[in-house]
Amino acid sequence: MQTLFVELGDRRYPIFIGHQLDGSKLLDQYIQSQQVMIVTNTTVAELYLAHYLKQFQMMGRTVATCILPDGEKYKDFQHLHLIFDALLEANFNRDCTVVALGGGVIGDMAGYAAASFQRGVNFIQIPTTLLSQVDSSVGGKTGINHPLGKNMIGAFKQPEAVIADMAVLDTLPDRELSAGLAEVIKYALLGDVEFLIWLEQNMSKLLDRDREVLAEAVYRCCAHKARIVANDETEKGERALLNLGHTYGHAIESYMGYGNWLHGEAVATGMVMAASLSEQLGWISTEDVARVKDVLIQANLPIASPKIPIDEFLGYMAHDKKVLNGQLRLVLLKCLGEAVITKDFEQSQLIQSIQDNLVA
Amino acid sequence: MQTLFVELGDRRYPIFIGHQLDGSKLLDQYIQSQQVMIVTNTTVAELYLAHYLKQFQMMGRTVATCILPDGEKYKDFQHLHLIFDALLEANFNRDCTVVALGGGVIGDMAGYAAASFQRGVNFIQIPTTLLSQVDSSVGGKTGINHPLGKNMIGAFKQPEAVIADMAVLDTLPDRELSAGLAEVIKYALLGDVEFLIWLEQNMSKLLDRDREVLAEAVYRCCAHKARIVANDETEKGERALLNLGHTYGHAIESYMGYGNWLHGEAVATGMVMAASLSEQLGWISTEDVARVKDVLIQANLPIASPKIPIDEFLGYMAHDKKVLNGQLRLVLLKCLGEAVITKDFEQSQLIQSIQDNLVA
Repeated sequence: MQTLFVELGDRRYPIFIGHQLDGSKLLDQYIQSQQVMIVTNTTVAELYLAHYLKQFQMMGRTVATCILPDGEKYKDFQHLHLIFDALLEANFNRDCTVVALGGGVIGDMAGYAAASFQRGVNFIQIPTTLLSQVDSSVGGKTGINHPLGKNMIGAFKQPEAVIADMAVLDTLPDRELSAGLAEVIKYALLGDVEFLIWLEQNMSKLLDRDREVLAEAVYRCCAHKARIVANDETEKGERALLNLGHTYGHAIESYMGYGNWLHGEAVATGMVMAASLSEQLGWISTEDVARVKDVLIQANLPIASPKIPIDEFLGYMAHDKKVLNGQLRLVLLKCLGEAVITKDFEQSQLIQSIQDNLVA
Repeated sequence: MQTLFVELGDRRYPIFIGHQLDGSKLLDQYIQSQQVMIVTNTTVAELYLAHYLKQFQMMGRTVATCILPDGEKYKDFQHLHLIFDALLEANFNRDCTVVALGGGVIGDMAGYAAASFQRGVNFIQIPTTLLSQVDSSVGGKTGINHPLGKNMIGAFKQPEAVIADMAVLDTLPDRELSAGLAEVIKYALLGDVEFLIWLEQNMSKLLDRDREVLAEAVYRCCAHKARIVANDETEKGERALLNLGHTYGHAIESYMGYGNWLHGEAVATGMVMAASLSEQLGWISTEDVARVKDVLIQANLPIASPKIPIDEFLGYMAHDKKVLNGQLRLVLLKCLGEAVITKDFEQSQLIQSIQDNLVA
């Protein structure tokens, strides 16, 4: 097992990365409260809820559960409210702990519920997808979607601890494994060309779910993100770089309806568009763009967007949180392994970067 | 004009207290963003919205408004969502400022919306009731109600500034002025017997809306609360003392349906119950309890609760946020001017304190 700390002063917390982790020891150390609410979804509940229920019960805790339907399209107010209902029906107080057992959607919803219930209770993450292990369980971004935009409502809520166990990835569908690899590749593109080379060499092992290799990839991504979050918790500056591909990607997700394209798939295609715009600006070469596409294809990810009318695509992008004083800013590539945030591009170049990457 | 600072490190913020304040100067200094969303209610909008709209427009800002129905019973998810809808329909971004123009309900909802929109945007309070000037606009508690309990969902969200203008109290209904005085009296009972004497002497001027005397009362309450909040922002300790009368009061409000009893009225009666229990514990005298009742009567406040079945009363109290590990804790009076939080009372004494203060 490897342990990483996210350095946030009095909200410093550990991420445990390994396989076949003995969760109960870790949990016992990080959950002081008697009352524990496990938030999960129907899919994960079937696979892992009994195991964790047993662990908490052996620890003598009062455990309640809230099982949500599975999918990004349920990341809304209505389903958030079910968590509050469960907490209040169980008579839970401000000294309870909310445990997110699931992927990014569960982490976002349980985290925002933990941030909001009684104005804030403790929170533990047990991410069960590759995407949530490398990305959404680190850094404290939580939230829900609004019909007019993704992740528009939420809070910065740091967990007490994150437990990333590679063993749970055995049951992850192939498509979701690939979606998680999109975020892994993102870390390489935005900040670490050595890691990009490592990924190009190890992609088949990752797809074969080699636990050692997966743990190494998760560790490298979490370490990278932890460094950035420690410097810029609330995304005033460099944290925004983590959104490489996301502004484009959000447009695809919003247009397609949440959940029809997986987040990681939309980010993959978004990164191709960001690479295309970077090429137009003369920052990276045609070969670099091809290399971006290649590593995504290796990971079985889509590199072209469905045909979305350009006005609608731009409209969804305008709702993105990276817009500052009405000016769209994008994360683009100065070179492979170095991203910047910029507003210095022409509208025509932006449009070109989208239109060049729609399905034929 | 007097200025008080709430000392919260990098979230330090000023409270301006005066009458006929030139809001535009203050606002211009504390609102950097181009986009301003004024959240108010139908009642306040009719009286003061045009004035503030004009001020912001003169400052060259892009202003949008969200006008909610007036009343505690609308402090729910459904109406919170209207604020998010308004922000997104106006295309507002994470650099916008939300301005709460109204009483405690508007402050709570606008503040929670500001805490949650895009995971947090700037927030300004312009409280238009005495209660919100002395209490809910200081300290950053925001939130909404849940059918199973008051203020169960929310956030700690500090504003950039608070503007408390006594001029707006001219239009406040008498009943709401009295409800505000309940919180004013609370500060005296829990921490300042000199202030209690001052209130006993100045109550008629307060009821006559003498602006100098009102400003003095608001200043003393805000200074008291600012000191407590600076020491204990998230209510781990002494901040809980500010809940004198509130656990009982919440039961009355919940049972009666939000808005039928005003918050201050319920707190007034709750303080009588807390005084009764304190007397049973031998901490204060029968004369002290009578003095508590007298000053509340002077302020035209109710000192007895509607006949609520005791089991239901206790059930609502059990949902209160002061419950720790299943143990009900109450703020009680060691003497007039000194409160403590305690769980050292018998259930029978608790019941007695309620039953002794029901309407005949």
